[in-house]
Amino acid sequence: MVRVEVLAVGRELLIGRTLNTNAQWIGRRLALMGSMIREVNTVDDDLDEISMAMKGALSRSPDFLVVVGGLGPTPDDMTLKGIARGLRRRMVLSETALSLMRTHYAKRGMAEVELTPARRKMAILPSGATPVVNEPGTAPGVRLEAAGTVIFCLPGVPAEMKDIFSRSVEPEIRAKVGKLHRKTVTLKVEGLFESTVAPLIERGLKRHPGTYIKSHPFGIREGVSRIELDIVVVGESLRDVEKVSTEAEREMVDSVKGAGGTVKVVRGRA
Amino acid sequence: MVRVEVLAVGRELLIGRTLNTNAQWIGRRLALMGSMIREVNTVDDDLDEISMAMKGALSRSPDFLVVVGGLGPTPDDMTLKGIARGLRRRMVLSETALSLMRTHYAKRGMAEVELTPARRKMAILPSGATPVVNEPGTAPGVRLEAAGTVIFCLPGVPAEMKDIFSRSVEPEIRAKVGKLHRKTVTLKVEGLFESTVAPLIERGLKRHPGTYIKSHPFGIREGVSRIELDIVVVGESLRDVEKVSTEAEREMVDSVKGAGGTVKVVRGRA
Repeated sequence: MVRVEVLAVGRELLIGRTLNTNAQWIGRRLALMGSMIREVNTVDDDLDEISMAMKGALSRSPDFLVVVGGLGPTPDDMTLKGIARGLRRRMVLSETALSLMRTHYAKRGMAEVELTPARRKMAILPSGATPVVNEPGTAPGVRLEAAGTVIFCLPGVPAEMKDIFSRSVEPEIRAKVGKLHRKTVTLKVEGLFESTVAPLIERGLKRHPGTYIKSHPFGIREGVSRIELDIVVVGESLRDVEKVSTEAEREMVDSVKGAGGTVKVVRGRA
Repeated sequence: MVRVEVLAVGRELLIGRTLNTNAQWIGRRLALMGSMIREVNTVDDDLDEISMAMKGALSRSPDFLVVVGGLGPTPDDMTLKGIARGLRRRMVLSETALSLMRTHYAKRGMAEVELTPARRKMAILPSGATPVVNEPGTAPGVRLEAAGTVIFCLPGVPAEMKDIFSRSVEPEIRAKVGKLHRKTVTLKVEGLFESTVAPLIERGLKRHPGTYIKSHPFGIREGVSRIELDIVVVGESLRDVEKVSTEAEREMVDSVKGAGGTVKVVRGRA
């Protein structure tokens, strides 16, 4: 299985100023292709924290490490420096990155903008890194390889992150993952405690190998216990995925009803 | 500085089914008391992943590790077992936890509910752990100490997490953090690139030591570049905090206007 990790950098995420919707978005994209993020780490804008977290991630030998945030021109943007420190690489001005930035400014009628130190900073990358086009923004994305892991660094601005991910990151991950089909069926269950549903899940998992069944409790509202049960099947053959999914769904619906709960089936979710 | 880490457990967070609002909520609570989360890790419902992530966190010697998610009765709820594995402790039935659960059921008119294996599971804790009251839910929270770190395990259901955090976790962290004041002023800046604002921040940070100034770019909308600048000051003396904050705010407003940007000041944010 292809291992993908995400390292999110930014104090705004740690002090609750910003919700980490970037990690959610990437998680969904990977899930849709039958893969998944294995771990998300979030650290402060701090050279040591970034460097340590990156080394921690590399120690788990992921195929891909997607680093998000901290590529901009301000003093707290220190992701690339942190990565370079962790890899013991020098920081070098990339002429390719500079030329991407010049193109970016030119397209916006600012061909004559001065490349101040703050702007040049966005083109100074760990040695061996390749800049990656960032269509909506100024700071290029960055791709590098280290210890068998492909590392992508993306800006934290969601529109820019999504643009680079879709254009450059996703195709490379998809090529490694291969063609997989994924089907999720959600059973919205009311009137049963999670502890009553637990043995039903256990039985379902045993009877339908290759199925992932997970319950999401939402507590008790207006006196009624509410749970959502996800039945997820991933596989290379669409027909097999459909078959296993349908069988597991049927069994789980029957057993939940048998235990006295009500069920509403929701299909088509990621 | 008191170091607090969060370990979030749950595949729903990795596949983007659920946004990690729990980490945001805890981050905000800590920020409000002048502290902050230093690192958030998110891992799958998997014994090895939980155990490894916990050991990774302990290797950084945090004062507190708040583990969220995976305390329930279903097969994928394996946080406590993962923690026990990482600490090489046995799992033992806690009579105190059982009695908390009995009280919980009794209060809901279910004194006679059968303590099935799935239900008893929620009372089986790593040896040396203490159960913590979970007012709105069934699974007790858990407190234990290891290698100088206080570890709290909380359910992932937000209402239950918040209840236990407010009642049992926050007071203990607050006692260690001490009395700190925190003030945030946000400048909503329009019409300047982040790369133009960068040297202004650099100057502000030099002139106002003890100030944290961070820019949050929101990209370009309707042709106008939008940035939010947070000026954060934390200290023991409210008067000093106010003074430093006011001075830094004045300088940053002046320098942003001087560079041709417009500013709107927002106070009272966390």
